[in-house]
Amino acid sequence: MKVLVDLCIVPIGVGVSLSAYIAECENILAGAGLKTSLHSYGTNIEGEWEAVFAAIKRCHETVHGMGAPRITTTIKLGTRTDRHQTMEDKVNSVKEKRIGAWSTSRTEK
Amino acid sequence: MKVLVDLCIVPIGVGVSLSAYIAECENILAGAGLKTSLHSYGTNIEGEWEAVFAAIKRCHETVHGMGAPRITTTIKLGTRTDRHQTMEDKVNSVKEKRIGAWSTSRTEK
Amino acid sequence: MKVLVDLCIVPIGVGVSLSAYIAECENILAGAGLKTSLHSYGTNIEGEWEAVFAAIKRCHETVHGMGAPRITTTIKLGTRTDRHQTMEDKVNSVKEKRIGAWSTSRTEK
Amino acid sequence: MKVLVDLCIVPIGVGVSLSAYIAECENILAGAGLKTSLHSYGTNIEGEWEAVFAAIKRCHETVHGMGAPRITTTIKLGTRTDRHQTMEDKVNSVKEKRIGAWSTSRTEK
Repeated sequence: MKVLVDLCIVPIGVGVSLSAYIAECENILAGAGLKTSLHSYGTNIEGEWEAVFAAIKRCHETVHGMGAPRITTTIKLGTRTDRHQTMEDKVNSVKEKRIGAWSTSRTEK
Repeated sequence: MKVLVDLCIVPIGVGVSLSAYIAECENILAGAGLKTSLHSYGTNIEGEWEAVFAAIKRCHETVHGMGAPRITTTIKLGTRTDRHQTMEDKVNSVKEKRIGAWSTSRTEK
Repeated sequence: MKVLVDLCIVPIGVGVSLSAYIAECENILAGAGLKTSLHSYGTNIEGEWEAVFAAIKRCHETVHGMGAPRITTTIKLGTRTDRHQTMEDKVNSVKEKRIGAWSTSRTEK
Repeated sequence: MKVLVDLCIVPIGVGVSLSAYIAECENILAGAGLKTSLHSYGTNIEGEWEAVFAAIKRCHETVHGMGAPRITTTIKLGTRTDRHQTMEDKVNSVKEKRIGAWSTSRTEK
């Protein structure tokens, strides 16, 4: 089963600077061969369910190994059976609708 | 690795009534022998990482099998290495602090 | 507009013990007259949009005031126009479906 | 109070294609003068607390007005008092750490 995931890992008990932990998770996800896209509040991941969650587990293990005694993670997770949809498809689908709306409103004026 | 999870599964494309799908997921989680607690915006789950995520995957498969072409799920996921903490521990820890605050403020007045 | 919210506030940079901060937020929500229910990974809140988000803002201000330099919060937020639904309604709706399924399976066997 | 938000609005009861609703929300956020960045599982928003949540409320009102009887939204919300941090700062901070790690490992080999 293909999944689209938005992953946000928050190490707790290591101060306010978290980017070194996130960078290490990015390395893990890339090393697992997963397609990813980093944004300002998480990382989008596209892949097979098993591979994605195995990589997320390794992220938790690694962040604990780096010294974080506690982690809280937020995951959004999408699956669909009606059609295949990539990360880019989702963004493009929204952008096309916006362009459509603008063209229409321009034509109407 | 022990995990505390908050799971919220949202079937898309099956109308506005989602409780039959959630009920089926509750059955799956219980059938997997996981400790769970249903609340108004999700289900808390306590268990081993592998068992919990295997059950969540079965929930997605089952909800798709019930006719939902698309699912979006939100997961909060906590792990810690400093100490063992149950679902009840977390709630009690907050409640004790509130009682403490009330006693203190009462004493002060 | 009525909202059902699941609120999970995570202070960052104050160590691993977060319950004192959560307890203070519980006090704020209760003091705002909001209906709440604490669970192991957050707090369910029921109320009017403006009142709920004003209280959440006060939680952030207060937790910063208690010494947390950084906060990351996860909110699930539900609104509906088809009918009124309380926090209890949502839980009961799932529970009734589960009882129904059990009765059916018992009858079938 | 400045906030960084990750917003994911999910209309329920309108079928599986949600991009027209998301596009309309993008228009609302842009019309409110907020800095935004669309990704595959939500929209990052940067702005003042009041302006951001007023715009999110307008999104809910508008999506209901477009015919969605029910909406479930997931919000991640960050505030900090120790320093100002933009959306780009967060991404760059992670990217720099990754480059640093690569350089180090290259030098070591």
